[in-house]
Amino acid sequence: MKAIGRWAIAEGYIPGKSTGSGRELTSHETVCVLNMGDTDARVEIAVYFSDREPAGPFTFTVPARRTQHIRFNDFCDPEKIPVNTDFASVITSDVPIVVQHTRLDSRQEALALLSTIAFPSNY
Amino acid sequence: MKAIGRWAIAEGYIPGKSTGSGRELTSHETVCVLNMGDTDARVEIAVYFSDREPAGPFTFTVPARRTQHIRFNDFCDPEKIPVNTDFASVITSDVPIVVQHTRLDSRQEALALLSTIAFPSNY
Amino acid sequence: MKAIGRWAIAEGYIPGKSTGSGRELTSHETVCVLNMGDTDARVEIAVYFSDREPAGPFTFTVPARRTQHIRFNDFCDPEKIPVNTDFASVITSDVPIVVQHTRLDSRQEALALLSTIAFPSNY
Amino acid sequence: MKAIGRWAIAEGYIPGKSTGSGRELTSHETVCVLNMGDTDARVEIAVYFSDREPAGPFTFTVPARRTQHIRFNDFCDPEKIPVNTDFASVITSDVPIVVQHTRLDSRQEALALLSTIAFPSNY
Repeated sequence: MKAIGRWAIAEGYIPGKSTGSGRELTSHETVCVLNMGDTDARVEIAVYFSDREPAGPFTFTVPARRTQHIRFNDFCDPEKIPVNTDFASVITSDVPIVVQHTRLDSRQEALALLSTIAFPSNY
Repeated sequence: MKAIGRWAIAEGYIPGKSTGSGRELTSHETVCVLNMGDTDARVEIAVYFSDREPAGPFTFTVPARRTQHIRFNDFCDPEKIPVNTDFASVITSDVPIVVQHTRLDSRQEALALLSTIAFPSNY
Repeated sequence: MKAIGRWAIAEGYIPGKSTGSGRELTSHETVCVLNMGDTDARVEIAVYFSDREPAGPFTFTVPARRTQHIRFNDFCDPEKIPVNTDFASVITSDVPIVVQHTRLDSRQEALALLSTIAFPSNY
Repeated sequence: MKAIGRWAIAEGYIPGKSTGSGRELTSHETVCVLNMGDTDARVEIAVYFSDREPAGPFTFTVPARRTQHIRFNDFCDPEKIPVNTDFASVITSDVPIVVQHTRLDSRQEALALLSTIAFPSNY
């Protein structure tokens, strides 16, 4: 796999509690991937921690002309991402993509949000 | 139309509920466009989804030396953007612009905000 | 003035209400300027609106090796910035600076925050 | 030390109060550093203020293939960072890193969040 796109998100944290009901109000950490091209993207995500070797790769297909908002909460293969734990991620793709990072935190009684375009890393 | 500026926002979501009254406290997803130049900008926005072909183009004019904060909630031609649905967007312009993405989410009793400069995509 | 640094913020909005007391909890829109160099920076800010010609320049000095977090709320010369009004801004400097945009919105009972590094514009 | 990576965060502020209990809900200002390389990173952080010379350097090691989410609240050598005080920071490293800035503000009864990728400064 030739990585044409490589993006990094230095922040990562799945809040361990939620208020409100349903999937939409559950605290979540999300990587939004946009594939505006005409070829399906094979996306690989490595997850970095403070005290152990990286996990992954977690692999996803983002079809041509589609976006997928992937929750770290849902990662399960090859392993789950623990809650209440600092992490970071590197997203690589075999075709150009755009990556944005969003968190919804509903631990306290009103939700909070953060978002940033990820860093387009060419290291 | 020659696209001099092309920007991407991988995150997009119109929360389906609001607390508080009035347009200003209604949950909204916004694309802020700044045209600092001396020529009106013709702006086209394509909206990408997870499970269907992109919608649009939605077309706007941002006059010279003006900013417009355009709500995805208000898009109606050629179609409306559904609420509670993941999407992404690509903004192209025939003159240079700057694009920033903001959400106000008032589903729970205190509003939340997120914002990021969009990604200046040259793919 | 030779503009070595030019930055743009397409989002801008001073919420017209606040909860909580004191300057620190007053709803505010801020441009954070960092001058890490050894020469004082002369900074000029132009403010763009949706329906009128730009206001400014608003001029500030950010001394060498200092940061200033300047609130649009406090702008008064040559004019004040109206609340509850969409705007955008362009920040130019005669020496290199770094610019970040932050809002604190305390209209509802718990404050909300947004922040993004501004766009380093070389148009 | 040869700075291969230099990043700037123009915003910085440690809220002086918190609601909720425990380290995770304490108001904090964080610099997230990702070292995706195979060499440990020696990271130096300088902290800039509005009215005095910069503090630091504060030095940290971010091991190879690790992330560290470092709270400005915990800085103590060579000095502590005061709360309720505007600051900014410059992060340099002897190997490539990626830097993201996050704040959790729980002064009022529901927490607020902000985050942005820092500015990759090559001045």
